[in-house]
This record gives sequence, structure tokens and C-alpha cells, in this order.
Amino acid sequence: MVSKSYKAWLQYEKIETVGIRNAYIKQLGNIVLPAEISEFAPAIRELKVAIRAMLGIEPVVSERPSNPSYFRIAMASGEEVEQLGSEGYRIRASRVDAGTCLTLVGGGTSGLIYGVFHLLRLIGANEPVSELDICEKPVSQLRMLNQWDNADGSIERGYAGQSIFYRNGQISERLDRVRDYARLAASVGINGISINNVNVHKTETAFITPGLLPEVAKVADVLRAYGIRLYLSVNFAAPIQVGGLATADPLDAAVQAWWQETAKAIYDYIPDFGGFVVKADSEHRPGPFTYGRDHADGANMLADALAPFGGIVIWRCFVYNCMQDWRDRTTDRARAAYDHFTPLDGSFKDNVILQIKNGPMDFQVREPVSPLFGAMTKTNQMMEFQVTQEYTGQQRHLCYLVPQWKEALDFDTHAQGEGSYVKRVADGSLFGAKHSGFAAVSNIGDDDNWTGHTLAQANLYGYGRLIWNPELSAQQIADEWIRQTFGNDDQVINVISRMLMGSWQTYENYTAPLGVGWMVAPNHHYGPDVDGYEYSRWGTYHFADRDGIGVDRTTNTGTGYSAQYHAINAEVYGDAVKCPDELLLFFHHVPYTHRLQSGKTVIQHIYDTHFEGAEQADDLQKQWFALEGLIDSARYGHVRERLREQAQHAKQWRDIINTYFYRKSGIPDAQGRTIY
Amino acid sequence: MVSKSYKAWLQYEKIETVGIRNAYIKQLGNIVLPAEISEFAPAIRELKVAIRAMLGIEPVVSERPSNPSYFRIAMASGEEVEQLGSEGYRIRASRVDAGTCLTLVGGGTSGLIYGVFHLLRLIGANEPVSELDICEKPVSQLRMLNQWDNADGSIERGYAGQSIFYRNGQISERLDRVRDYARLAASVGINGISINNVNVHKTETAFITPGLLPEVAKVADVLRAYGIRLYLSVNFAAPIQVGGLATADPLDAAVQAWWQETAKAIYDYIPDFGGFVVKADSEHRPGPFTYGRDHADGANMLADALAPFGGIVIWRCFVYNCMQDWRDRTTDRARAAYDHFTPLDGSFKDNVILQIKNGPMDFQVREPVSPLFGAMTKTNQMMEFQVTQEYTGQQRHLCYLVPQWKEALDFDTHAQGEGSYVKRVADGSLFGAKHSGFAAVSNIGDDDNWTGHTLAQANLYGYGRLIWNPELSAQQIADEWIRQTFGNDDQVINVISRMLMGSWQTYENYTAPLGVGWMVAPNHHYGPDVDGYEYSRWGTYHFADRDGIGVDRTTNTGTGYSAQYHAINAEVYGDAVKCPDELLLFFHHVPYTHRLQSGKTVIQHIYDTHFEGAEQADDLQKQWFALEGLIDSARYGHVRERLREQAQHAKQWRDIINTYFYRKSGIPDAQGRTIY
Repeated sequence: MVSKSYKAWLQYEKIETVGIRNAYIKQLGNIVLPAEISEFAPAIRELKVAIRAMLGIEPVVSERPSNPSYFRIAMASGEEVEQLGSEGYRIRASRVDAGTCLTLVGGGTSGLIYGVFHLLRLIGANEPVSELDICEKPVSQLRMLNQWDNADGSIERGYAGQSIFYRNGQISERLDRVRDYARLAASVGINGISINNVNVHKTETAFITPGLLPEVAKVADVLRAYGIRLYLSVNFAAPIQVGGLATADPLDAAVQAWWQETAKAIYDYIPDFGGFVVKADSEHRPGPFTYGRDHADGANMLADALAPFGGIVIWRCFVYNCMQDWRDRTTDRARAAYDHFTPLDGSFKDNVILQIKNGPMDFQVREPVSPLFGAMTKTNQMMEFQVTQEYTGQQRHLCYLVPQWKEALDFDTHAQGEGSYVKRVADGSLFGAKHSGFAAVSNIGDDDNWTGHTLAQANLYGYGRLIWNPELSAQQIADEWIRQTFGNDDQVINVISRMLMGSWQTYENYTAPLGVGWMVAPNHHYGPDVDGYEYSRWGTYHFADRDGIGVDRTTNTGTGYSAQYHAINAEVYGDAVKCPDELLLFFHHVPYTHRLQSGKTVIQHIYDTHFEGAEQADDLQKQWFALEGLIDSARYGHVRERLREQAQHAKQWRDIINTYFYRKSGIPDAQGRTIY
Repeated sequence: MVSKSYKAWLQYEKIETVGIRNAYIKQLGNIVLPAEISEFAPAIRELKVAIRAMLGIEPVVSERPSNPSYFRIAMASGEEVEQLGSEGYRIRASRVDAGTCLTLVGGGTSGLIYGVFHLLRLIGANEPVSELDICEKPVSQLRMLNQWDNADGSIERGYAGQSIFYRNGQISERLDRVRDYARLAASVGINGISINNVNVHKTETAFITPGLLPEVAKVADVLRAYGIRLYLSVNFAAPIQVGGLATADPLDAAVQAWWQETAKAIYDYIPDFGGFVVKADSEHRPGPFTYGRDHADGANMLADALAPFGGIVIWRCFVYNCMQDWRDRTTDRARAAYDHFTPLDGSFKDNVILQIKNGPMDFQVREPVSPLFGAMTKTNQMMEFQVTQEYTGQQRHLCYLVPQWKEALDFDTHAQGEGSYVKRVADGSLFGAKHSGFAAVSNIGDDDNWTGHTLAQANLYGYGRLIWNPELSAQQIADEWIRQTFGNDDQVINVISRMLMGSWQTYENYTAPLGVGWMVAPNHHYGPDVDGYEYSRWGTYHFADRDGIGVDRTTNTGTGYSAQYHAINAEVYGDAVKCPDELLLFFHHVPYTHRLQSGKTVIQHIYDTHFEGAEQADDLQKQWFALEGLIDSARYGHVRERLREQAQHAKQWRDIINTYFYRKSGIPDAQGRTIY
């Protein structure tokens, strides 16, 4: 018996309103399928499963219509082929003799899958289908999930159990859970999954060898059915570690030959293999620097190996000095990616994509957009988000991240004048990139509900939907997700929607203030520790003293990071008066008495947001209580427990942060609330 | 080939000075042994091994003298029996016919062993033996080491490798290393070892069952040869976990019967079994509180079970609330042991001993003496030290702890007026206790040099020597240890002696100031983190704000802890003017501008000691450099590496502590040195 938690947003609950159900039955009771499309294709199977569940009927599948109204499915032909592309689809209702013909045309098998899921989403929301005229294709090319899963079954930064891909050092024998994951991913348009951690350990280094490729290929087979390509994270030192060579120098002929043979072997087993994800010369991972080469040398060598087969190299830009001395204020980790990569603009092969984290640091609750977006006009780029909530509550706290991602996508880089939005970099249109798109660190594991916190399913869902079309609003995505996950009850929708939409701001309120980031316990990154990263080697400082706080990243007196943005942004960020409040401490060191644009002082803002955030967290619980009886008790009870923990933990955050700053500043709360 | 590191202080280097060697040969070349003493007794074996090594001869063993001078060994008889006790010995030289008779009389087999080691120590130091007249017996009754070793081979707070007692969940098959350890321990007078962690895990809980007792008995056999009794740490919930009972209530008849049967089974296998060490109702360990009983109920029940066999119960007083809320300033962890145990004075059976840590917190570099010493006149007590350097540099830093222990022992409790020293509580004389003595957490593991840092061998050595006779000075013990470990070169002795003697002060200088403690990274406790334990549940706070620092433990305005001492001490500690500087912040919260008895302000003291401490650490290196070529290169190089790391790490300590307090206080260093 599959639980509701497990079904996530593919509940396919039976439609209880007879009139609505009958209208759907009339339209979908007869599926008209051409011979070229198998009744057992995943798209058709999904459709039939859903019709059975939601409408309570067994649909009649025929080659010609057998009902007055029917649902016709076809593959694109003629000019539609180019119009839709392999991932697009059209859903259109039209009057025929005695009824209505609903037609779904898929640009390819992927388009068909996406079209079916779109239609099912509408049915799940009880939307009428008799007037549909939809034509969709994804705005972004590469829509990817990065699993940080390890062969030993652990997941780096995983908060939902163990890996579904691996067990005891091997690829899982049973891949049914991977298949269910692929289905969930495909339902929101994901078309690529890298199945192993970017920190590639010993066993995983050998995934690209003939000994293990047959196992990897089995995973690829499962993903392929849902239109998802398999990618592998590779170890740059693989030629040494599994190739028996003495070097991994990218300019060494033997190394190049080894990667070429390796690529060939991979494609023998996995003809549609997506390519390599590479974390090189980052946090002690091997890379081209060892041999006096640069990132382009390294990436291009791999790109040459994959090019004959259509594969790509996804090269991560998360490169910085992770052995920094906190005493050295001239080095600024935020600068690192830009400083490393912009000089190389134009030198990467066209099947290389640089994967750039949304912000310059590391998935903090609040960061500016990475200035690399908009800085490299001749280089393929993709955006990296983190769906797993490493720094945003680890799926014990509710934090719906779509609003955060949306803000990043809507940031105007001004690279080509006004309107040079980040989303136009990520969709490849701004600079006419050959490859572009999105990757995100997944938040799933083998917990029954996939994501630890059931409401964290919304982040996985939302990631897929948002990158399919960055014009969707966070609210709209939340609404879709709630209806599919918990049904169409207005109160349920209103309550959960309000909870989701406010949750990022709430989390920001009670954690690190005004964009300064960090302030978490080292290593595991859970819970408050204001100085946890203050005297460390990670380049993550707030410089709070008795007078003020923040990092001066301006050009005149600071690290000069603000100048990595185009003029108009550089000017705003570089000026403590103009800088948006929420990023003030990221760019400026100011006194606690500095007055924000909001009119409050920095210290009073800290107190106010922390009291408010803890209250909001408490309020999340209370809102949820109103849903008792309106949703199933298993999910209700589970979420209630998480929210209870969050509310309690938010108070801990509030008190530690407030006490820390009160002890340091000596400035009392204007409202005289309790600070310890 | 056994390395010099492994030999520790039992080097038995050949004496190169011919005159000295010949004098010893003349005296010790003929060993006269009565029939009652086996030539293969450990004491005699040890003697012969040492004579062979140091003098280069094979001694002649005979029942009657065959040389003019000789070395006669005998067991005590007549009034000497009571005079020496089983652990005492007499060594006396007397003129006989044509030579000198050196006589060693052992009060028992242990006394014989101790006497041999004493004599060998003198020979190692090249002391003349022809005029000897020594009569020694240990001042303390129980002289014990606690191994915090786990069956899985790990050691809680171990910094010298894995356990020598266990491997892969079982007692080691080869016990030769345990035998060598017993020999080292016996050489400094240890007479008891508890072989498993006070946190008793699953496997170890079953050590007291017939299934595992045969294995435990093998260890006891090895220890017994060196006069050491085996003790076990037991799990108070053992009746449930291995006994199949539904309760562990100490007043339940079935529970009592189970422990009685268990005790009988233990003594069947180990006739001289020492007894139980118990950590109960402490840091989540089970205990009598679960059943509404008190510590006396729990301890007495176990004591009754052991009494018929002469066993004792060692009940630890490390009991406090480890789920404290940092916001609650009324609870004071320092008070806990006293508050828990003094009301029970007089209610413990006479084969129960309370094991009390030297200070009220947890083995910090500086703490006052626990007020429990001197507070319980009708209860057996023993002192617990920590030889393993959990909070004092983890055997990566040099920290010779004998001076610290010495200070604790010389503390006058004033319990019975002036002169009521802690050492007189620990030796049982002050209150006429039936049982008393010392325990210490051992610092050894399976590293070749036993203790991780070779110079940390001095702490194990010094612990044994000091508790044998608390009147020995730290300097004298250091001198003994160096001579035996590195030989009699004056420069070697002077340098290492100076290094050892200053090392505790040096470590204190660059770490937490003025007795406030903690300021280490949570969990592993290595390296600086000023706020690491500030907002935690462990009751470990410094309360530093922009104005001042320290814990108010006075009676009028603080937690009242200072009143747990007898009047004269309570008055000194309770008064910020009289309180010794080094404990000021343990007892008082004062402004940074508070002037110490030294004349410095608190803040300037912090700066000065931290600059000084880091320099001293650096200087330790330089002192060591002078020994290159004077000691073997293996030990020289190893120690040099540790000292290099210490010097570097001390700078990290210096800068983090100084920066933390500069940022908080805003008060610049009077000498204008660099603070970041």
C-alpha cells in the first residue's frame, strides 16, 4: 500500500463531485491512439493509471474514435515538429460531429510525457478541459537534478534518509524507487540527473570503467523511460586512480586518450549518456591546477572526449580558497568564482557549460546573485540552486524556496542594458548560448515521504516547474502543488499557501540578519552559532564587534567585490544608503545604529525580525492546527511534529542571536522585550 | 625490536661509566633468593632483565651468598609484616664480612615488585646503593586507572590510537600489550585498573555475564601478575539489559538477587576482582533516579552484592543537569555534585567509595578544588584526575599535569581546621575513611609510544608517583621520569624539566583565561571557540558581554556556589578582591577594567597572557631544538613535530581569544600588539 506521503503530488485522488467527474469521463473515456504510439509507453500508462484512479473507469483505447467525444493522442508532424521540439506539446479541444475532440500532440516522447502530466494536473485541479488550447515547451534546455549521493548509501547534505540509488557500496539491486523518482521528476519536466556526489569518492570514481558501467547503465535505462538522461560526476584524477596513469594532466596525450576511450566505453553502454559533472580544484578536489593548467584546459579536454557522442561537460564554478586565514581581510571568498572564470571567457569548447551557484557564497538564506551571470558573454552557463535545505532548515524547518529562486532569476544584470535578466542568461537567450539551463542539488532520500518534511516536496516540485517556465509565479506553483498534493479544499489551499509563501521570509527573520549569512554550527550547519564560522578557514565572516557588523565589499574601502557587477548594480550595492536592506551587511560594515531604508536601526531590525520570526514560526503551527481533519492524519501529524520542532528551534535562534548582539552592542531593545 | 618510545620510562639503558657500572655489578651480581620466592616471579624477572640490560651481566641467583657483596631478597616476617603491609618494602644496605649486603624486603608480592622498581629507578639515575636505607609504603590505598575503552576498539577521549584491550567488539586475543601496560603501571605503583568505559555500551554491559567472564578473567590474570586488580564499569540497567528483568530498581528483591548472583559468578572467575565503577544518573546514563531512589540506594545495593567477596563499589559523583537551558542563570552546574551528595553523607555502606573529580566542572585547565572534598565526613571518598588531556591539548600540546594535581592535593579544605588538606581526604586520614585513594582516566592507546605525545608519558608516570606519595614534588617526579626516559645527560634533564614544569602555565596562558574554562570547540574539545559552549545545554558559560565577563557564583548576587566551601575558603572565593587571580572569573563577573591582584586589568591580563603563551609555546620548540643529537632521532623528531603543531595552534588560540575580547570590549592592547 503506497502512502499519501510517498505519492507526493501524484495523488490522483478520485474526483468525488459527480458532475465534474462525468464531464471528464465523457471526454477521456476513449483514448484514440495511433499505431506508432505504444499503449505501454510511460505517457500512456501514466494516463491510464490516472484515469482509473481519478475517474473510476477503465478507458477504452482504440485506433479510431468509438465515442462522440474522445481524447486523441498523436506525435507531431509537419511544421509542428520544429515548432514543438522534442520536449514540447500541444493540448487543444475542438468541436467534432457530436462531441469534442481533445488532442494531445507530443513533439517527441518527452513532449508526450510532459503533456500527459500537464493534462492530469488540470484534472487534479478540476479545471475544465473542453476549451483547452495549450502549447508549451520548456523555456530552459537543461533541467537537471544533482544527487549528492554516495555509494555507501549516505547523502551529502541529505535530510531525508539514505540514498535510493545506492546501498552498501553498490548501485541498488532494486531500482523501483529510482523509477518512482524518475516519474516524479518527469512530471515536473526534469530531463537530466547526475546520480553521484560531486565529491567523487573511491567507488564512484570507478563508475566510468567497464567493470561498473553495466550497473550504471541499468539506472540509465530506468531514467530514460521518463525522458531523463543520466550524468555522472567524475573525479578529475580518475586517469590516475582507475586508469593506472601517472598523471591526470589535461594536456598529456595519454590522459586525453584515456578519457576518449572512457567516453567511448560509456556510450557503448549508455548511448544517450548526458555527460560529466565536474567539481575540480575546489575544496581539496583534484583538478588541472595541479599541473599548472587552468579550468579551460581541464574542461576542454573532457569536452573533446565527449564531443563525438554529443555529451557535455558541466564544470562547476564553486572554486575558492578553502584554507583562508580569518586574519587576512584582503581575500574575499565572494570574489573567487568571478576572479577565476571571467578571464577564461571565450576559451571553453561549446559543449562545456559552467555551473554557477545562484549566489557568490554557498546557498545562504540570502545572498546577492552571482556576478558571474552577466559577466561571460562567450561561455555557456547554467544556474545551480540547492533544493536540499542545507542552510535553510534542513527539512526540519519549513522553507519554501521558490520565491528565493524567483528573485535570483528576475535579477537584472544589465549586461546588455536594461532587461538583461538572469533568467535570460539561464535560458541561453541573452548571449545566444548553445547550452544553458539549471541544475539543483536534490532534496530526496529513502524516507517514505521522499523529502523528510512532507511540505519540502513543494521545493522539488517548484524547482521543476519554475525552470520549465521562469515566468510562473511562486504563488501559482504553490497553488498547483497544494491542489495535487492535498486536494482542492479552499481552506487547505489558503492555509498551506500562506504558510509556504511566508516561510522563506520567516526563516530569514530568525536566522542570520541582513544578508550577512552563516552564523550556523560548523560542519552540520544546523542551528545557531553566531561565531561558528567567524574564525575559520572558510572565508565566511561577519566581523561583528561592539560597534557594528558586516563585510565591507565596496571598492573604496573594502574588497572590491561590488565592482564585479555592471555599473548600475555596482553603484547600488556599493552605496550603504542605496543598498537594499536585506543585503546591507553582505556589502557593508556599518554601526549597529546605522539607519536602514526601513527607518529602523540595524540593531533594532535584528531584535524586531528575531522576535517576529519566532512568532511567525509559532504561528505556522497554529495555522496548521486548523487543518486537522481536513487532510489525512498521517501527513497532518507528521507536519505538526516538524512545525513544533521548528517553533521551538526558532525561539532558540531568536534568543541566541538577540543575546549575542545585545551583549556585544549593549543597546537595549526599544520595546523592552526579554533578551537574555 | 621494541622502540625507545615503546619502552617509555623503562629504558634500562646500559650504564656506560665503567666505575659506576662495576659498583653495581659488585652489589647486584649475586641475587640471594629464599626458596619461597620463585625466580620467575615478575619482580625477580624484572630485576634480572634490568641487570642484564643495564649492567651487561647475567646475575647469579643462589639461596646463600656466593659473593662477598650480594643482593638479598626476602619476604617480610615478624613485626615487619604489619609495618610494611602487603604493598610496602624496605631496601637497606649493611656491612657484612667482606662486603655489603643489600636487602630488599617485600611486605607482600606487590611490595616486592614496587621495591624492585624503586631500586631500578635509582640505578637508572646512577645513584649509589651502598648506603641505602629506604622504607616505603604507599600513602594512598586505592591507586587506580580508568580506561575509557570501548569494545569496538575506540577510546572515549583517547588521543593515542585505539584500545589495547579490545578489537572488533571483543577482548583482544593477544594480551601482550596489556601485560606491558600492567608492567608500566606497576612500576609506578598502580594497583587497580577498570578496563572499560564508564559509559557502558551494549557489549560491555555483558562483561559481567558467564558468557564473557572467561574472557575478562584472562585480562585479570595478566594484571594480577603485576599486583593490579581488575575492576569493571557496570551499567546500572544491566538487570534489564542482560538479566532479562523488567526493572533495575535497587530496592526490588529480584534485582538485588540478580546482582548477588552476578557478583558470585564474577568472583568464581576472578577471585580478586576489585569491584564496580558506576556512572549512574549522569549524562543520560541509567541510575536509581528512574525508580525514585537515590544514589545511596543504588550504590548500597551493589555494595551488598560485592561485600561477601571483599569487592567495592566506586560511585562517580559527576552528576549534573546536562539538559540545562543557557537562559536560566539560577542553575549552576558547579553546585551539582555537592548538592546531590552531601545530603547523603553517612548513608553509604562502608564498601562504597564516592569518586569525585578534582574540580566541580570537568577537568578544565584551571578549576577550584571540588568542595565535596571536606564536606562528607562519614563517606569514603576518592579523587578522580584526568591523565588523558581532553581539555589540555589532547596530547598534541605539551601539558605536564602533575603541578595541577599537586595544587589540588595541597588545597586546604579547613574541614577540620587548618591543615585539612585534600590529600588527607584522599589518603583517608582526615576522616578516618575505610577506603580511599585515587582514580584517573588513562591516556594510553595502541600508538607505539603509548600516549600519542611521547612527553605525555610523563603524565602517566607522574600520576602513579604522585598518588603513591603526594609529598613528592612535581619537579622531583619530572626529574625521575626524564632520567629513566632519556638518560642522565644534564642538558637533556635541564631542558626537558624546564619544558615540562612550565607547560601547564603556558597552556593556560593561551587558552581560557582566569579560571573561566571551556571556550573550546564543542564535541571534540580541541581548539578555540570562545562561544562554543556559551549557548549550550551543558551548563558551561562565561557570560562575556561588552562590559565584562565571568560567572557570579557568590552568595549575595550569584549562584551561591562559593558557600559550599568551609568559611575561610568561602570568604576568599566570595570576595572579588581576595579571590586568587587565576580563579577570578570562575567566581565573579567583573568588568574588563577590573584590576587583578597582579595589578593588571582583566582585559590587559587576557592580552598579555595570550601573547606570552603563544611565545612560550614557540619557545618550547626552540628549547627542544637544543636537544638534537642528544636524544635518539626517532623520539626527537616526533616531539619536534608535535611542538611545531602546538606553536602554530597556540597562535591560533592567541589571535582568536584576543580578537574576540578586543571586538567585545573595544579596549586596545596597552602595548599596541597586533590584534585582528
